Amino acid sequence: MDQFLITFSGKKSKYKELQEHIKHLIITGVLPHHYKLPSIRKLANKLDVNPVTVVNCYKSLEREGYVYTISGGGTYVIADNNLANTNEDFTESSSPHNIKYDLSSSSPSPLFFPVKTFKNLLNEVLERDGGFAFNYQESEGYLPLRQSLQSLLTEYKIKVSHHYIHVITGGQQGLDVIAKTLLQEGDYVFTEEPCYPGAIATFSSRGAKVIGIPIREKGIDLVILEKELKKYKPKFIYVMPDFQSPTGYLYDQTHRKKLLELANKYSFTIVEDDHFADLNYSQIKLPPLKALDTNDNVIYIKSFSKVFMPGLRLALLVAPPLFNGPLQEAKQFSDISTSGFLQRTFDLYLRKGLWNEHVNKVKLIYQRRCQSMLSALERHFPSSIKFSKPQGGLAIWVQLPENLKAKEIQKFALTKGISITIGDDFFIQRKENFFRLSFTNLSEKEIEKPIKELATIIKNML
Amino acid sequence: MDQFLITFSGKKSKYKELQEHIKHLIITGVLPHHYKLPSIRKLANKLDVNPVTVVNCYKSLEREGYVYTISGGGTYVIADNNLANTNEDFTESSSPHNIKYDLSSSSPSPLFFPVKTFKNLLNEVLERDGGFAFNYQESEGYLPLRQSLQSLLTEYKIKVSHHYIHVITGGQQGLDVIAKTLLQEGDYVFTEEPCYPGAIATFSSRGAKVIGIPIREKGIDLVILEKELKKYKPKFIYVMPDFQSPTGYLYDQTHRKKLLELANKYSFTIVEDDHFADLNYSQIKLPPLKALDTNDNVIYIKSFSKVFMPGLRLALLVAPPLFNGPLQEAKQFSDISTSGFLQRTFDLYLRKGLWNEHVNKVKLIYQRRCQSMLSALERHFPSSIKFSKPQGGLAIWVQLPENLKAKEIQKFALTKGISITIGDDFFIQRKENFFRLSFTNLSEKEIEKPIKELATIIKNML
Repeated sequence: MDQFLITFSGKKSKYKELQEHIKHLIITGVLPHHYKLPSIRKLANKLDVNPVTVVNCYKSLEREGYVYTISGGGTYVIADNNLANTNEDFTESSSPHNIKYDLSSSSPSPLFFPVKTFKNLLNEVLERDGGFAFNYQESEGYLPLRQSLQSLLTEYKIKVSHHYIHVITGGQQGLDVIAKTLLQEGDYVFTEEPCYPGAIATFSSRGAKVIGIPIREKGIDLVILEKELKKYKPKFIYVMPDFQSPTGYLYDQTHRKKLLELANKYSFTIVEDDHFADLNYSQIKLPPLKALDTNDNVIYIKSFSKVFMPGLRLALLVAPPLFNGPLQEAKQFSDISTSGFLQRTFDLYLRKGLWNEHVNKVKLIYQRRCQSMLSALERHFPSSIKFSKPQGGLAIWVQLPENLKAKEIQKFALTKGISITIGDDFFIQRKENFFRLSFTNLSEKEIEKPIKELATIIKNML
Repeated sequence: MDQFLITFSGKKSKYKELQEHIKHLIITGVLPHHYKLPSIRKLANKLDVNPVTVVNCYKSLEREGYVYTISGGGTYVIADNNLANTNEDFTESSSPHNIKYDLSSSSPSPLFFPVKTFKNLLNEVLERDGGFAFNYQESEGYLPLRQSLQSLLTEYKIKVSHHYIHVITGGQQGLDVIAKTLLQEGDYVFTEEPCYPGAIATFSSRGAKVIGIPIREKGIDLVILEKELKKYKPKFIYVMPDFQSPTGYLYDQTHRKKLLELANKYSFTIVEDDHFADLNYSQIKLPPLKALDTNDNVIYIKSFSKVFMPGLRLALLVAPPLFNGPLQEAKQFSDISTSGFLQRTFDLYLRKGLWNEHVNKVKLIYQRRCQSMLSALERHFPSSIKFSKPQGGLAIWVQLPENLKAKEIQKFALTKGISITIGDDFFIQRKENFFRLSFTNLSEKEIEKPIKELATIIKNML
């Protein structure tokens, strides 16, 4: 058991240091597959630490996919060679199981990416610009692309000069540079609850305190919001008015206007995250908050990952004048600039008028898949299970009765080759009875079977 | 003068808010080209602020290229339409002047990028992977690329499993994720002085206190370093042992070993930034610190921007086991993952054995340019001007007598169409008598003329 001995550096919490140490032993093969880790009591004695430290360490290792536990039978090293691929808690994480029905991934389907067209444009850019396509690009983005984006934004009723449009390396980087610009240790941030966990993590990592405001079908709960605004002065509130992640809820006009009014009244900034506005399956198209923002209170992020192709790592950010310089600086210190080569190619894509064509195509596909999943849910799921009926986006949000844990459903589903995303990490005040079903990666015909299987699993547990 | 009226939000310092406000007036054309800004006294009175606020605001606007001052004659809006392109203080910034001789850019020359080869590989990847090339990639990087990088690193005597190799979106992102992982408000960080300003900014933005340790020709000043280590406990020390930026100095074996010993003795982490190890024009090749790091004290970053192509935004980071998980998490919250498409293409480039061929080619070109510039400096510069004689890298570091300001040289040089990078921002304890001359973008024959012009300018000012 001597291989477990560790001198704590004090640089991190003990359980984290111990966890890294054991991870190292696993990765380097010192602890072989299916090796039984020492009992909590024994290891705590050996290292002279509180047993809770070992409990937390083992739990964390399990969550990261390095070990598995057998109820009452101990903790074991898993037998998967590809350990480093078992990401922690991100929705994009791959799973070590053999998945036949992927209902967990929030990625769009690669089958509908415009690969051929894009390939031609990549070549066109290289013919045109040669090596200069691979040089450093301005931190705020390639000027012609920013001009193209200015024109694209008018279609969403956002009228803004390209001087305030920044090209960023994906929506997540937008959250990161906003956190860097606006947040300091101890600041307050409000988010919808449930909320995209990557946002919560980014804001927390700046030392901010994140307060969740419940999201309802027609938008954030304005009564609770105003109550909290009287108690705290948040630096900003982070919202997704169009098909909120994970719930799929759509803000109505009243909630949009009222939120902007509150921003004025209580002087806070709104961070509007637009992943899904393009994937709107209804006839009603409401303007983004930024389009209604006459007082420069909104920072707007539009990601091209969900509607276009995530591997490009491209998004745009519209900054209010006050934050224009500081946001650009924060972007610069994050990764200097977004790949100029990919920016140039995307610019060409927009200039050739290919954007709307693509959006209309994928919208139709996902709309059908959405309907197909909703119809399967209605037919198979017990009536005690609630689920969202989104008019856009890529997923459906499911609520179990409070005594059921999504984690348990997930475990059984995996044995049937079905992956789902449990809702736990989307909550600040942890709730364990929610999960998310994505319909992006299964055809209309394929969707029925896994939903039926899930229904059976749930019925058995009710 | 009413357009200058501003209600301070208190979200930022007053001079910053005022600066953003005036910037907005300039960008939107409210203040036309060559418009004379109000005098400091008048504006301070009007806004009821301390005149220092206005001074700082105007200085900052000037540094960012929005206004110019005429000695004793006031401050004016500049007459450049491309205002948004005038980056602040980054070495990659473009200049609004008409530059004939670019001695300021630290970018490699796009003329030597392997565009044709890379284009073929881009197409090969798309033929092979289709849409999957544009999907999300694992946060730690595309597994085959990490394996290729593992093999590449053995050429630098770094033996490490790919489990500890992370693909990052350029070297700057490496600094950012390290800062996120290791630094909290009030922590100490040591850097060489002078030092890459992007590093200082990134560390400071986490609230860390940056202490500069002088760099000498053979490495960091070990005596001063140990003295400071007795006073402060830095979270890490940031160094560039191979052709340090901006000085071009190369750590000898003694300095490498002694630094590692000190890391052990005083328990600090070393962040080793390798931009230039491949551009070594001498016969002596010393192993990177990471290769000598038997105690897992070194986090190693290798950028592919300076030696390969900056527009790919690709670098690697080698993490010690203790920080492996936290660094991956910080990367994930920064931009989810680096473009999988570009990762796949670079992987192919490495697998086809094209890397060494490219490095040898550009090394020869830059070595000749370096010699050509050194020889021109020796012939034309007055003997009172000191300059580095680098055995690698892309630039030469010049020291003026203390009574001369590099900024003045820069101003005159610009009128002759020559751009140089002044050293001011590389110093924590500001020094104004240094500048940097890059030899990447001029052929051997072209180098003489601007050096001769610079020499004349300096002689006139001595």
